Amino acid sequence: MTMKLYFAPGACSFVPHTLLETIGEPFEAQMVKLHKGEQNSPEYRAVNPRGQVPVLVDGDAVITQIVAIVDYLDRKYPQQGFLPTAPLERAKALETLAWMNNTVHPTFTHVFMPFKFSDKPEVQAELKAYNAQLYRPMLADIEAMAVRARDKGHPFLSGAHFGPIDAYALTLLRWGGFAGIDPTGFPTLWAHVQKVAALPAVARAIARERLQLNVFQAA
Amino acid sequence: MTMKLYFAPGACSFVPHTLLETIGEPFEAQMVKLHKGEQNSPEYRAVNPRGQVPVLVDGDAVITQIVAIVDYLDRKYPQQGFLPTAPLERAKALETLAWMNNTVHPTFTHVFMPFKFSDKPEVQAELKAYNAQLYRPMLADIEAMAVRARDKGHPFLSGAHFGPIDAYALTLLRWGGFAGIDPTGFPTLWAHVQKVAALPAVARAIARERLQLNVFQAA
Repeated sequence: MTMKLYFAPGACSFVPHTLLETIGEPFEAQMVKLHKGEQNSPEYRAVNPRGQVPVLVDGDAVITQIVAIVDYLDRKYPQQGFLPTAPLERAKALETLAWMNNTVHPTFTHVFMPFKFSDKPEVQAELKAYNAQLYRPMLADIEAMAVRARDKGHPFLSGAHFGPIDAYALTLLRWGGFAGIDPTGFPTLWAHVQKVAALPAVARAIARERLQLNVFQAA
Repeated sequence: MTMKLYFAPGACSFVPHTLLETIGEPFEAQMVKLHKGEQNSPEYRAVNPRGQVPVLVDGDAVITQIVAIVDYLDRKYPQQGFLPTAPLERAKALETLAWMNNTVHPTFTHVFMPFKFSDKPEVQAELKAYNAQLYRPMLADIEAMAVRARDKGHPFLSGAHFGPIDAYALTLLRWGGFAGIDPTGFPTLWAHVQKVAALPAVARAIARERLQLNVFQAA
C-alpha cells in the first residue's frame, strides 16, 4: 500500500515531503489549501482533528507532527540515514529538530499568523513586528550550524546524509523572506539551502509545491 | 560516570527528572533558579547557550530539548519502555509528546511568560488572557487521552509503562492551576495525575522540586 502525505505548499510539511521523495517509493501527495480553509473541512478534521499539516498515512497509521513522522520514516527506512545512528549524534540531531519545531517555527507563526495568539488587530501588529526581530538571530543560529558542518567537512547539517534538518533549515530560511529577512545575509546557510534544493528528490518536492526559494523583497 | 540533570522546580525538566528517578541509577540533580536569572549566568550559558532547562549531561554528551533527552534515555534504557516499541504506537506517543512540547507548552508560556513575545505590558496582558482561554481545551484533549487509556485498560497514557507523556501531562495540568484552571475539572486526568504522582520514582522528583500538585486557587 502506498503512503499518503497531506501537505500545504511552503508549510513545514515540506520536511516529510522531501523525505518521501528521497525514499523514492511511489506515494500520494494530497494538497491541503490552507488559504481556502480546507484544513477546517469536516473531511480533513476526520483525518486530523487538529486541522494541521503534515499528516502521513501508512496503512492503518495516521501520524501527525514532524518529529513523529521523521522518527517513523527513519525507523522504516534506516538505510536512508535521515537521523544519525550514533547515540550522541542522534540526540544532537533530534535536539536541533525539536528546537526548530518548538521555537523557531512558532516564532515565525507569530509573524505569519499572529491571529493564532490574539483576536485584537493592534496586538497582532505588535506580535508581528516583535517576533520578526526574534526570528533573525534564530536564523543566525542555523547559519552557525551550517558553518560548523562545512568546517567539519559534513555535506549535510546532521552529517553524511540529507535529512529533516536540511529540509527544515530550507523552510525556515525561506520563511524569513516573508518576515523581511534577506536569506543571502546568511551566506553559508544560503549556499547550503541552494545545494539542498538542487538535489533531485528535493527539487521534485519544490516543483510539486511550486516554491520560490528566495521570497525576500527589499523594502 | 553518573548522569547530571539541570532542572528548574516545576518546569518541563520535570519530565526527564522523573525518567531518571525511574531508571534508578544515581544521578546528579542540579537546580537552576530561573527566578534568580541563573539560566542567564555565564556558567549556565556555557552549558546551554540557549539558557533553558532541561539539560542532560552524560559523559561527553550535553543534550537539551525534552524530545531529544527522552529518545536518548529510551534508547539507553530500552527495558524501561519509556516509549512504545511497536512502530504505530511509538509514532502516536511521539506525536503526543511533540504536540505537548510545541503547542500546549508554548501556549502556557504566553500565559506565564508573555514577555517572551512582546515588550509592551498591554500586549502581554492581552496574550495572558487570550492564551489562558486557548489552554483549557488543550487540557480537555489530554483528559480525552486519559479516558481512552482507561477505557483500553492501559495503566499509563502511552500504554503499559510510565513514561514522558504521563510526566508531561502532570506538568501541564499542574500549570493550568496558574492559568486559573481547576485541575479537578478534568476528573479522569486528575485521577491519573494523582496516581502517577504517587509512584515512588515520581514522588521523589516531586519532593526534590517541592511541588504542590494542585496550585489552583478559586477567584
